[in-house]
Amino acid sequence: MPYRAPTTDFTFLFDHVVGLDQVTATDRFEEATPEMIEAILTEAAKMCEEVLAPLQRPGDTHPAKLENGVVRTSPGFAEGYRAIAEGGWIGMSADPENGGMGLPMTVTTAVNEMMSSACLSLQLNPLMTQGQIEALEHHASDELKALYLPKLISGEWCGTMNLTEPQAGSDVGALKTKAVPNGDGTYAISGQKIYISWGDNDFTENVCHLVLARLPDAVEGTKGISLFMVPKFLPNDDGSVGARNDLRVVSLEHKMGLHGSPTAVMEYSGATGWMVGAENGGMAAMFTMMNNARLGVGVQGIGVAEGAYQHALAYALDRKQGKAGGSGSIVEHADVRRMLTAMKADTMAARAIGLSCAVAIDMATATGDSAWKSRAAFLTPIAKAFGTDVGMAVAQEGVQVHGGMGFVEETGAAQYSRDVRVTAIYEGTNGIQAMDLVARKMMDGGEMAIAILDEVMNDTKAAQETMPELAQEVWDAANTLCETTEWLVAQDMQDRFAGAVPYLRAYARVLGAGFHLRAALKGDDARKALARFYIERLLPEHEGLLAQVRRGAQGLYDLSLDDLAAA
Amino acid sequence: MPYRAPTTDFTFLFDHVVGLDQVTATDRFEEATPEMIEAILTEAAKMCEEVLAPLQRPGDTHPAKLENGVVRTSPGFAEGYRAIAEGGWIGMSADPENGGMGLPMTVTTAVNEMMSSACLSLQLNPLMTQGQIEALEHHASDELKALYLPKLISGEWCGTMNLTEPQAGSDVGALKTKAVPNGDGTYAISGQKIYISWGDNDFTENVCHLVLARLPDAVEGTKGISLFMVPKFLPNDDGSVGARNDLRVVSLEHKMGLHGSPTAVMEYSGATGWMVGAENGGMAAMFTMMNNARLGVGVQGIGVAEGAYQHALAYALDRKQGKAGGSGSIVEHADVRRMLTAMKADTMAARAIGLSCAVAIDMATATGDSAWKSRAAFLTPIAKAFGTDVGMAVAQEGVQVHGGMGFVEETGAAQYSRDVRVTAIYEGTNGIQAMDLVARKMMDGGEMAIAILDEVMNDTKAAQETMPELAQEVWDAANTLCETTEWLVAQDMQDRFAGAVPYLRAYARVLGAGFHLRAALKGDDARKALARFYIERLLPEHEGLLAQVRRGAQGLYDLSLDDLAAA
Repeated sequence: MPYRAPTTDFTFLFDHVVGLDQVTATDRFEEATPEMIEAILTEAAKMCEEVLAPLQRPGDTHPAKLENGVVRTSPGFAEGYRAIAEGGWIGMSADPENGGMGLPMTVTTAVNEMMSSACLSLQLNPLMTQGQIEALEHHASDELKALYLPKLISGEWCGTMNLTEPQAGSDVGALKTKAVPNGDGTYAISGQKIYISWGDNDFTENVCHLVLARLPDAVEGTKGISLFMVPKFLPNDDGSVGARNDLRVVSLEHKMGLHGSPTAVMEYSGATGWMVGAENGGMAAMFTMMNNARLGVGVQGIGVAEGAYQHALAYALDRKQGKAGGSGSIVEHADVRRMLTAMKADTMAARAIGLSCAVAIDMATATGDSAWKSRAAFLTPIAKAFGTDVGMAVAQEGVQVHGGMGFVEETGAAQYSRDVRVTAIYEGTNGIQAMDLVARKMMDGGEMAIAILDEVMNDTKAAQETMPELAQEVWDAANTLCETTEWLVAQDMQDRFAGAVPYLRAYARVLGAGFHLRAALKGDDARKALARFYIERLLPEHEGLLAQVRRGAQGLYDLSLDDLAAA
Repeated sequence: MPYRAPTTDFTFLFDHVVGLDQVTATDRFEEATPEMIEAILTEAAKMCEEVLAPLQRPGDTHPAKLENGVVRTSPGFAEGYRAIAEGGWIGMSADPENGGMGLPMTVTTAVNEMMSSACLSLQLNPLMTQGQIEALEHHASDELKALYLPKLISGEWCGTMNLTEPQAGSDVGALKTKAVPNGDGTYAISGQKIYISWGDNDFTENVCHLVLARLPDAVEGTKGISLFMVPKFLPNDDGSVGARNDLRVVSLEHKMGLHGSPTAVMEYSGATGWMVGAENGGMAAMFTMMNNARLGVGVQGIGVAEGAYQHALAYALDRKQGKAGGSGSIVEHADVRRMLTAMKADTMAARAIGLSCAVAIDMATATGDSAWKSRAAFLTPIAKAFGTDVGMAVAQEGVQVHGGMGFVEETGAAQYSRDVRVTAIYEGTNGIQAMDLVARKMMDGGEMAIAILDEVMNDTKAAQETMPELAQEVWDAANTLCETTEWLVAQDMQDRFAGAVPYLRAYARVLGAGFHLRAALKGDDARKALARFYIERLLPEHEGLLAQVRRGAQGLYDLSLDDLAAA
């Protein structure tokens, strides 16, 4: 069974679970009619199934390579990229004035997920460009916008993000790359950047690097960082490419997975750059890019989960082993059935959370309402960390369903688990996401956290008649989580951070249960059965997680460094 | 920080937690004095740290290869193997009459763990041989014993297990390999076997394959299977090697990890074999080999956990990032501290379970007591599945601690996670282990399960004065698990199987808590702090797991195959 895009599920979630109708009811997104959205999903599904999915294995077995300073991409990637660009899938949510489709991020999120399922390593390229388009739309000068946006949206050029340096990873403020004014409005950028996803390629005319760097007189830390557009080729005013800029790919990383995506060490040697946004305002501009990239990465995890699930299911349906009833294949064994159903239930929960986050982003864009902005900000780290955790867990379980065949690379099951591993790390590790959630995203005293849980509890009232037991389980869980949230916001930062990861996961578990319950209310027997599985078997995990949260940092440092190192 | 063998921990666990004194008090193992055990641990540690650990990365980057029908092993592996053989580490627990050391399996288990930490792919070779030695000791004729055991124990020859065929994986009974009597007491073996770990090498004089096959008149299923010794070279009576046998390596698998271990497809074309054990008694003989191999594989998981933990700790101690207090390295961040402490606590729990299983095996060997046999049989699937699950989880968390560096292969963090992945699959998947636990191993109505929990509850009484809260948590957990156990044994097999994996994990969680509590009672403040961390933060997971168990198979099949496949 090759990859089949879950368009029916997207449509159901749009219509009955995450409330896309609110988005399409706004002036901003009124052109996104149900018919249009359906047509878009169908078209994107076709490309993912027919063009991108066949690139998945070659991307792994024939990694991107650096040859004489030139990046050679995996076989077929150039054609795959062209299909993405020509379909208009890069600039789906970009401003129509520059060639974008102006569609809701919610719809883009669904398409991004499908592309991630089909070929994650290639999909990372347009995902980076999408983030860059958004950063430029919000922060660049009109000149830069006019020059770069049409090219990025059409896919003729692509974009990268350059944050990390060897000594500056999670601590971006420690970066040292320099930007010295040239006196003509441009800057000379010098320094080394690492982990640059798609730092170069052999299929776009230009590669546009957004680089964080420091002006000569900048203060230390994040407040002294500015953002610069540093293209591989200096563009002429007519949009054609001119001279080569002073930047190069030094090397590509040898990675555990995602081999089709060249991860570059970049060297800037007085390269010409243009400032994006205000002096020392680089972090603000970068956060625009990163916030949506965080949702995008969460969705990568969900995409891999869907791909790995389908792959494992196909194997289980085909494989005969032991005395299995029914179809005679291993899918009839209780433990295999348990694994597959859990994979499907978790994927659905993560997908609903991701789409719900996208709806909040769209509503914030359409209305400018601060409550929607806060909601999007609150859900983003959850969508990122839970989406990628589910991606990792489902991919690992997919290997397990395959048995010995899972450990053999030819089946492709192992590749999902290797590829998805980085999604829990890049765009801020999942630990960083959790810390963001319990600190910055709860500076409102937990108001948004509890407002969303109130919605979940409201849903349980609607389900009380038809599914009283499930409704009760979800209500209890949401109520316990409310209490723990109130406790958490009263603690100091160290106590919050100690429980940040289990808190985020417990929150996602409960929120996922709320979405499953809503789906069961509106859906057929299969949706009800899936919801029941999730609520009865997966939701209870939240108890153990919240027990961890409530310990705070108590005793966490009782083991000294010597104790930790004792062998 | 290169690998440092945890000999202090082994000695502490031997003396205060798993009760090795019972073993050394028996006549059978009276020669294993504390001084001797200490000397053995020290000597093995030295070899693992100095000789084997440097082979870990080359084994990954320079995989074993098949060239013109000959397996070429990774650089340094021949020398590493020689060190293992010459140290006597293969035949540690083998009969001294044939050159073994006759030491308790408990001590062998510690040494096997150290070798697994240092270089898993090479360690798999002697592990297979250890299993073969045991199978021959129990089931082979005196002639076969006299010919093979000295060579296997000295390491001049090594051994493999040949069970799996393409259509016969977890369902061994489906195998088709034929054994036709030659009329001279030997048999002509024909068929294809897959997933043969260390199916060949270029450093032992001979490779001895134990092959499951069917006699011409054998019944279908597991009752028609016999076991055969099929050596690569036919031995002469004086123990020298003679003619090449009719068997060959067809190909090596391209695997996710464990690249240093050649995993072969073997073709037997009328190869000469000798029967081991009774006609159609192959499964019984194979189970001797597999049971201990299952503990051995669990210990591989624990070894990787220890290696990955040390690797991650070293990185965290070294890496400066953000505003960390104390040492200024990331180990001071609450979330990193949480990850590392959990890794250490889980490794300790898994280690204690593995050693406790080994003690039961030793006591069964020394006393012949059926209660000890049952105890060993009960603990084996737990040690295997929990040990390897901990290995996988700790290795994944080790990657996470490394951040972006974890995804880059050069650091070695990713290799642990790739190598260990197969341990949850081979020697019976962890799902198979769990089914074995709730079915065969609970045919006593749960008696052994509850007897062991009674011991845990007894320990909590001893801790009531000094650690009342922790004692209470463990008592409650053990009590809940007892109740669930009583419920479980009253259910039919389908209900048991549906909850088998969560039940096994919950059991290991609680048993691990018992061992941590015992360690805290006897140990210093660091042991107490580690026990507290485990009991307060990791033990609560059992609640969510037992909630799953109690659902049985209810609703598990409500999603049809079409529902599962709906996209």
